[in-house]
Amino acid sequence: MNVLIVHAHPEPSSLTSHLARTAQQVLLAQGHEVQTSDLYAMGWKAVFDAQDFPDRLDASRLSFIAESEHAYANGCQSDDVAGEQRKLQAADALILAFPMWWFGMPAILKGWIDRVWAFGLAYGYRGAGNAYRYGEGGFAGKRALLAVSIGGPAADYGPRGINGSLDQLLFPITHGTLFYPGMQVLAPFALHDSGRQDAAGVAAATSAWTTRVAHLFDEAPLRFRPQNGGDYPDRHTLAEQHAPGRRDLSIHLAD
Amino acid sequence: MNVLIVHAHPEPSSLTSHLARTAQQVLLAQGHEVQTSDLYAMGWKAVFDAQDFPDRLDASRLSFIAESEHAYANGCQSDDVAGEQRKLQAADALILAFPMWWFGMPAILKGWIDRVWAFGLAYGYRGAGNAYRYGEGGFAGKRALLAVSIGGPAADYGPRGINGSLDQLLFPITHGTLFYPGMQVLAPFALHDSGRQDAAGVAAATSAWTTRVAHLFDEAPLRFRPQNGGDYPDRHTLAEQHAPGRRDLSIHLAD
Repeated sequence: MNVLIVHAHPEPSSLTSHLARTAQQVLLAQGHEVQTSDLYAMGWKAVFDAQDFPDRLDASRLSFIAESEHAYANGCQSDDVAGEQRKLQAADALILAFPMWWFGMPAILKGWIDRVWAFGLAYGYRGAGNAYRYGEGGFAGKRALLAVSIGGPAADYGPRGINGSLDQLLFPITHGTLFYPGMQVLAPFALHDSGRQDAAGVAAATSAWTTRVAHLFDEAPLRFRPQNGGDYPDRHTLAEQHAPGRRDLSIHLAD
Repeated sequence: MNVLIVHAHPEPSSLTSHLARTAQQVLLAQGHEVQTSDLYAMGWKAVFDAQDFPDRLDASRLSFIAESEHAYANGCQSDDVAGEQRKLQAADALILAFPMWWFGMPAILKGWIDRVWAFGLAYGYRGAGNAYRYGEGGFAGKRALLAVSIGGPAADYGPRGINGSLDQLLFPITHGTLFYPGMQVLAPFALHDSGRQDAAGVAAATSAWTTRVAHLFDEAPLRFRPQNGGDYPDRHTLAEQHAPGRRDLSIHLAD
């Protein structure tokens, strides 16, 4: 299989970099092909702007959606974006390794999503509006796994932890960014207390992460409900018989 | 009063830009002072990296937390970051106007947070670890309001909408980014169907937004639970008598 590892930390000795390297080693040892996008090393342009559209549909007004659709459909995206899309399309799985900054991705990684997740590919698939999303779409058939290093302790991210539970804090990424265009998403891997790990802690985390990576292609993914599986009869709202009376993000996971 | 409007869309005719301009006009007409940070026009550097620390504590290894603490405490941050912090410290309220991209902020705005929210100011306040957070901290006494333009329809973001409810999707920003360093956060303002608004729709949204801005300083904020108000006895986990049995993000709002 082919795996793309996208990595968003500039310090080679950081735990994020360690997780990315470990994943690469485990996958290569299993005989997989590995591609990497080390965003800091690449000098990845984070900001999605007019430069992304060298051949504009409408030079007088910048609509990101209209220009993204035009550029993707007509092969006139910027080279860096087209290159990352080629890597993704060759990949059977995507690993995103990043530090949690303010309960989300670092800007450089958010900008990789903003720019690479083009209209016609990651949304607006087949020019059919929202017909294909959440379980179907341009990235269907691929798996996705997050490796997140987190400064705070696991207790703060527990089911009733003060920060909010980790799975729900990451929902905009797991569900909204990865499942939306069709990927099957595994439960995130989190390394807590990232600034306070001693050698034994790093060894334990490395072992746990190694196991997760080794099972990248056979672990059961999160059971997010597909848009077109019947649970959202009008494609907008979850039918009342599912998770009745609830309105939290976890209702979008099948029972 | 003094209000800082941070604005993250490069197209002057976009609805995001319209919301930012409208807020400025309403506030000026009320006699407030307004500062603006038009991130695209400023060419804001989104990526948090070694260039943020021109006078390193440790040139051999980049720790963002340690370098942020050192740079903030010793006045050796980069000029652009220090300038935004000065604007923030002069402000009584912060408005963030942005388009929702992949259920979060555009990278340029995420990078404004990543870089400006320094250790010693927005976290690690007073060198006391996590002693002051969620309701206390470097931005205590300020208000915050999001103005989010969203391509999708409101139904998709309803309490049982397929994307997840908007208040919970924005929780990493409202709670984790704004309330964390002490701001009082108002309910977000959302403009849905942003690509499909006619003149009447824009007029209605402008009117609703005008009302929200006009009440920036007297609207009741979201009742997020402060860390040190007694609801989190160990500062990590919500006491069982509050929202008993629940584990969704909304448990962090007082009843």
